[in-house]
Amino acid sequence: MERVKEQRCFGGTQGTYRHDSEAVAGAMEFAVYVPSGDGPFPVVWFLSGLTCSSENVITKAGAQRVCAELQLALVCPDTSPRGHDYAKDERYWFGEAASYYVDATAEPFAAHYQMFTYLKDELPAVVGKHFPVELSRQCIMGHSMGGHGALMMALKQPDRYASVSAFAPIAHYTACPWGEAAVAGYFGGDADAARRYDVVSLIEAGARPAGPVLIDQGTDDAFVEEQLQPQVLQKALKEAGIGHELRMQAGYDHSYYFVQTFMEEHLRHHHQAVAGG
Amino acid sequence: MERVKEQRCFGGTQGTYRHDSEAVAGAMEFAVYVPSGDGPFPVVWFLSGLTCSSENVITKAGAQRVCAELQLALVCPDTSPRGHDYAKDERYWFGEAASYYVDATAEPFAAHYQMFTYLKDELPAVVGKHFPVELSRQCIMGHSMGGHGALMMALKQPDRYASVSAFAPIAHYTACPWGEAAVAGYFGGDADAARRYDVVSLIEAGARPAGPVLIDQGTDDAFVEEQLQPQVLQKALKEAGIGHELRMQAGYDHSYYFVQTFMEEHLRHHHQAVAGG
Repeated sequence: MERVKEQRCFGGTQGTYRHDSEAVAGAMEFAVYVPSGDGPFPVVWFLSGLTCSSENVITKAGAQRVCAELQLALVCPDTSPRGHDYAKDERYWFGEAASYYVDATAEPFAAHYQMFTYLKDELPAVVGKHFPVELSRQCIMGHSMGGHGALMMALKQPDRYASVSAFAPIAHYTACPWGEAAVAGYFGGDADAARRYDVVSLIEAGARPAGPVLIDQGTDDAFVEEQLQPQVLQKALKEAGIGHELRMQAGYDHSYYFVQTFMEEHLRHHHQAVAGG
Repeated sequence: MERVKEQRCFGGTQGTYRHDSEAVAGAMEFAVYVPSGDGPFPVVWFLSGLTCSSENVITKAGAQRVCAELQLALVCPDTSPRGHDYAKDERYWFGEAASYYVDATAEPFAAHYQMFTYLKDELPAVVGKHFPVELSRQCIMGHSMGGHGALMMALKQPDRYASVSAFAPIAHYTACPWGEAAVAGYFGGDADAARRYDVVSLIEAGARPAGPVLIDQGTDDAFVEEQLQPQVLQKALKEAGIGHELRMQAGYDHSYYFVQTFMEEHLRHHHQAVAGG
């Protein structure tokens, strides 16, 4: 693992790192905030949205202040493998920076787009080896496509994450315009395979997260009706009897101005789950 | 005045606006954060550094959360006029986004680079007309070149600003490598004219700010020795008997990770001056 940069922030260290990933057969970058103190610290994962890298959340979300106070490590993976010509696409919702955090089964993406395996197995091991973290205490959150990713990971691995939260998540990617490209490109149109990573489909199939679910959604989010579909998510959560809080936040859009406003409450939600705080 | 964008953030509104400026003979953009509530709100000015526009501070400084709590409006001007070919320079410390907030006297810059007059007269009037602010209660802060700007404005207009603070300010721009280009380009090499905007020179000439001065400087800032020279500033402040707190912050660099870490303390410094809080 190679250090790209490290900077002091709220007494701790905000770093970006690069490593050679077996899962995605190439170099990957990720960011970690480690608070000051001895640790080991519980780990909060933040999965980012379409077009983003880890840089957006570490510069714009205001998370470090709260992580410093609550003594949480924040790990921010990239949104896809990088640098493959076949994945450069003019559609910002497909290909590079738009992995949906799935393991692709269709060529050419299957060769590198193995983000589920990367996040499930490889990156936690790297983080556990190099940082003062406690992998027995993990939580996961995300924004937009990363909100989908966080809920999906929590549903598929309830023993892993003590809590989950999402900002404006894509609730049902196999049934929204953005996700059509992913179903076609990553799974060769095999909708059954794609649904194995779909939040609403997972809930309908009986998957349950370990802890309570916190979701914030801005009412002025340009993507809410067509792409994000919080009402579809809420219906699935309710019918499954999954404890959750889904808050419609009046006047907020899809940006990091929205994310930073509610970041502290999300981190306290996770802190309570991993530290009883 | 035209609205470029407005977004909800911590219950208030983060906006960017464009207007035709007489002072700089062209269009200017600036950003304003207005907290929720009735107002009128005291105004905190934030002057940004080399290469920046108002976008850096409004996305990366974590100021809105604190402004919402303390009920302060935050006004963030641009760092220079924009779009003039003569001001495009490969040196990031001169020309566009590097005005030093002075009124240039040498051609071609004198035609547009009248930032001191713009900030002193024109922009406060625009802000006072369009936003729920109280111009009898103003404070000023800034980062790097904007730290120079904030201290300079406070020294030249002690009746205007109740308090001043700076993150890693350029203390003595007429006597550091970055500033040589400004003295040559904006003043045709007239060092006396340039010193009328120089923080250390102003103090030595007897200028005094209205209230106590707060300055933070990271010890790992790559520019501290050669460009920023906090020790020169501290010597001038001490010899002038100006009340101040200059804090060397161990391990911090020049970035917004540094700025965001101490933003809350700076805003509380200003709040105390304008609201007795």
